[in-house]
Amino acid sequence: MNKRPLPGEFELIERFFAPLAKDFPGALALKDDAAVIEIAPGHRLVATTDALVAGVHYLVDDPPALVARKLLRVNLSDLAAMGAKACAYLLALALPKDTDAAWLEGFADGLRADAREFECPLAGGDTVVTDGPATLALSALGQVPEGGELRRSTAKVGDRIFVSGSIGDGALGLKALNGELGILAQRHRDYTIERYRLPRPRLALGQRLVGLAHAAIDISDGLIADLGHVCETSGVGAEIQSALLPKSDAARIALADDPGLLSALMTGGDDYELLFTVAPEASVSVAGLARDLDLPLTPIGFITGKDGVDVTDAEAAGIVLDSPGFRHF
Amino acid sequence: MNKRPLPGEFELIERFFAPLAKDFPGALALKDDAAVIEIAPGHRLVATTDALVAGVHYLVDDPPALVARKLLRVNLSDLAAMGAKACAYLLALALPKDTDAAWLEGFADGLRADAREFECPLAGGDTVVTDGPATLALSALGQVPEGGELRRSTAKVGDRIFVSGSIGDGALGLKALNGELGILAQRHRDYTIERYRLPRPRLALGQRLVGLAHAAIDISDGLIADLGHVCETSGVGAEIQSALLPKSDAARIALADDPGLLSALMTGGDDYELLFTVAPEASVSVAGLARDLDLPLTPIGFITGKDGVDVTDAEAAGIVLDSPGFRHF
Repeated sequence: MNKRPLPGEFELIERFFAPLAKDFPGALALKDDAAVIEIAPGHRLVATTDALVAGVHYLVDDPPALVARKLLRVNLSDLAAMGAKACAYLLALALPKDTDAAWLEGFADGLRADAREFECPLAGGDTVVTDGPATLALSALGQVPEGGELRRSTAKVGDRIFVSGSIGDGALGLKALNGELGILAQRHRDYTIERYRLPRPRLALGQRLVGLAHAAIDISDGLIADLGHVCETSGVGAEIQSALLPKSDAARIALADDPGLLSALMTGGDDYELLFTVAPEASVSVAGLARDLDLPLTPIGFITGKDGVDVTDAEAAGIVLDSPGFRHF
Repeated sequence: MNKRPLPGEFELIERFFAPLAKDFPGALALKDDAAVIEIAPGHRLVATTDALVAGVHYLVDDPPALVARKLLRVNLSDLAAMGAKACAYLLALALPKDTDAAWLEGFADGLRADAREFECPLAGGDTVVTDGPATLALSALGQVPEGGELRRSTAKVGDRIFVSGSIGDGALGLKALNGELGILAQRHRDYTIERYRLPRPRLALGQRLVGLAHAAIDISDGLIADLGHVCETSGVGAEIQSALLPKSDAARIALADDPGLLSALMTGGDDYELLFTVAPEASVSVAGLARDLDLPLTPIGFITGKDGVDVTDAEAAGIVLDSPGFRHF
């Protein structure tokens, strides 16, 4: 394969990044010191950042468009969990000197596709060289009505706990990538791998939960760990029923073959669904919202006054709750 | 030297980063999915990001507090160049697994000191491991009165060109670090090295230039290159007199010994002073501003209708203008 070297800084911006910013006046065509972004009156800025390292968070041979989309989407998922609408993003890329221009083209293509889908254009960035692996940092900027942001720390005893979509596909996708889950048909393997590689940030859901949900979080560390974060910061506990967990067809088949997988579904990361809590009387509104968005929103338990997360059902007896989530360090 | 290993992710946040965010309610104690930041009514968000790589942008043995402060300050300098007030910053750190806890303590100390000085607290972040060199990305968020932001692209023919502080100390500091400039007394060497290592973002000046300056940029790539950016984006040219360049005592002494250094002063990077243009009749206001801020603001030339940057003075004959700035790639 012939590699094409990267051009110099200014051509790099002109060729790969300026096209991603061209429809966003606030980016100032990437030709100024910083971007200028309007936050609507009565709104607050919501800001988050996440980084991916080649060889740690993705494989060097992963398609660059997918890497880009995952990078953007994990950040957008954080905005979704706050109830925010996306505004724009900043990129800080450290790239090896020998990065192929084709890689960066693919990377930019991925960003372009997702920026359109999620209405989140590039506002600015920095590209530097590194002797190490590619290191990709992205900061997502959004806005939320003042006082309306969804927090982790505001769950109330008696709240119903809901999750969007299906849970555990991210964990199964990672297993499938590692050559496990031979029981699954190829299309089911492909489905879980895609779920693992390409989160679906629930931005529309998050925005609709403003004023409705008491607390929310996106499931990135695993259902149990992230529900644990809600409980800890809210000073409450939770009781969920593993039988209520919304599962994809792939997860159902894999579980039927190996019931022991239930632990992985509940503690694996990378689902990027939203978990949220609402007052019991708001459950009807949630059902309506699920119809509006054509997205399953499933009640899995409730918030309690006890400490910690309890999982009921005999089915769940094997779950080890003291090592619940993915630790980044 | 005994190294102390870094703790796990949550303790890492608790010990090193939460203290940097504790006085800023919008950080939500670093315990939520994203930060929530107020942009004052009638203002716009200003956002920028920059990354530093160990071994490329700083030396592995550089004091970590200085590295942290440089990282924050280069970003704040971009806010200053837009006329913005700093609001908060996001951090995305990729650290080698064997990073010493003492290094991170020093890094956090540096951030704490500068966040206080520039009223810019930590709002959120991400810390990941890398097999490569430490890679430090920071996004700075600020605000500017709506329509008041200082751009590069709005210089007008006839404008006077001013620069703040002194020019060329960054370039001399790098030479001093490389063992050159033996002619300088130690205190002058130390001064230039400090200038190189620790930019002084001109935030107060930038904010006072809103409504006064036509165009502004911070001098990071070198005076000639950055003035070139202003000219190119504004569709104008510039004529400056090298004799008018404001110089530190150290620069004056170095130049007296080696007049050929003038080129390095004008094309070296890392000054992080502001260059701005104002209508000729506003020069009096600039003089008043210099007194108010106790900061030299020196006229060095004017904006012309011709393309490019011309440097007059016989003294400047040796300056090579076709390779004007530091290229990051």
